[in-house]
Amino acid sequence: MAKLITSPSNPLIKRIHSLHEKKFRVREGLFLAEGMRVVTEAVEAGVAPAWLIHGPDMEDHPVLQRLVAATEAAGGEVIETSADVLRKLSRKDNPQSVLGVFTEFGRRLPDLDRNASYVWIVCESLKDPGNLGTILRTADAVGAGGVILLDNSCDPYSVEAVRASMGALFTVPLVQAKWEEFLPWLRSGPGFLVGASLNTDHDYQAIAYPAPTFLFMGNEQSGLPESYEQACDALVKIPMRGKADSLNVAIATAVIVYEVLNQTRRR
Amino acid sequence: MAKLITSPSNPLIKRIHSLHEKKFRVREGLFLAEGMRVVTEAVEAGVAPAWLIHGPDMEDHPVLQRLVAATEAAGGEVIETSADVLRKLSRKDNPQSVLGVFTEFGRRLPDLDRNASYVWIVCESLKDPGNLGTILRTADAVGAGGVILLDNSCDPYSVEAVRASMGALFTVPLVQAKWEEFLPWLRSGPGFLVGASLNTDHDYQAIAYPAPTFLFMGNEQSGLPESYEQACDALVKIPMRGKADSLNVAIATAVIVYEVLNQTRRR
Repeated sequence: MAKLITSPSNPLIKRIHSLHEKKFRVREGLFLAEGMRVVTEAVEAGVAPAWLIHGPDMEDHPVLQRLVAATEAAGGEVIETSADVLRKLSRKDNPQSVLGVFTEFGRRLPDLDRNASYVWIVCESLKDPGNLGTILRTADAVGAGGVILLDNSCDPYSVEAVRASMGALFTVPLVQAKWEEFLPWLRSGPGFLVGASLNTDHDYQAIAYPAPTFLFMGNEQSGLPESYEQACDALVKIPMRGKADSLNVAIATAVIVYEVLNQTRRR
Repeated sequence: MAKLITSPSNPLIKRIHSLHEKKFRVREGLFLAEGMRVVTEAVEAGVAPAWLIHGPDMEDHPVLQRLVAATEAAGGEVIETSADVLRKLSRKDNPQSVLGVFTEFGRRLPDLDRNASYVWIVCESLKDPGNLGTILRTADAVGAGGVILLDNSCDPYSVEAVRASMGALFTVPLVQAKWEEFLPWLRSGPGFLVGASLNTDHDYQAIAYPAPTFLFMGNEQSGLPESYEQACDALVKIPMRGKADSLNVAIATAVIVYEVLNQTRRR
């Protein structure tokens, strides 16, 4: 049974609205996902929202009914609200009619089973939430073990990152860590660290990628720091024939990780 | 010698500001590119701005001096303006200090030499300017002949598309056309049309891509229309092992086009 809240000044509505800002996400350990599709992906991945918020006159929507059932079964709360409040919550003129508030996953490196997949993606100080979301989608597509976000990367729980991930945030394990934690963890077990770099002549197709491979991608502007490159087991370069000698980082990630998948398929 | 304009109500400033809107871009045949880096890429590709606008106290900047020289040599006008006007022109609180106003290229299908490259990218009703910009960057990186935008695609001259292309808009030939024009043009000469599709079992690595290959990518939501798929010489599918069975369209483009490049490298 949905609780009806139509006042924009309701404390819970204000609290949910505050999740657009990182400071409040961190404080609450909660984040927002917008849209029936993304919330459905979450529920199908076994992650129910703490709050499910929907617009008026939707009780009969069959997909919403499944989301309501999943939310209530997991002890969450269902809230029906007005179009006005939905606009406020989504900060958009044409808001989605469904919002989910989810608990941040808070996974840490020791939670990961590195042998659960042949490939993992590691990003150093990735800044753009759209790039992160796209990399999460690609990680899902290749069956990567997860994405490890190092150092000063963008917030994976921002509305922009969640949106760009198209639900992959709920299916792909994600860990935030510092390089100083990551490197000892990596070296405590099997793992082949391959950095994408312009500072090498090794073609990305010329090396064999053993499992588990950790594909290491640098910052959008500056790539990987030199000392990080030195800690890699190999550096690889994607051939380029253009004028700019640069690829979007999510594109470069996909090109290399599909090579790793293709080698795995041929074995 | 730069002309000084500091009034936000100056007619030229208002005219340039109007280029944020497609209607005025179409009317004027002009578009905006923001930032020293992108304008420099344009000039290096041999395309000088019709107007080069820069902020105060930049006369001694060596890169700007090259841009000024290129603009004046091509008969363009250089305008120095205030930080306030730059904010207005860029619609941002922290604007770039350099803007270029360029003439739209207006290339058409008959202008293209299909044998100039081993691969071309064709996009059907591509909606997201960020995806288009990223595809242009990838097209530059693989040395594609160009990008052909079909039907109801987004405007390649929007500020968002120009920004995401990181200058590739100036280096990669781009044509806008209707399917009804494209197909007869394609069939009037050599060209292998390969559609990316979920409606096939053909693995994208299982076929040989003859030159010139035209890689055909569908809309973000709906893929290629069925009748367009039927007109293709082959359909290919990227293997996916995830829960979502979907990739960002710019990612899918890159994965396939790098396979085409890799086959070409092995020949």
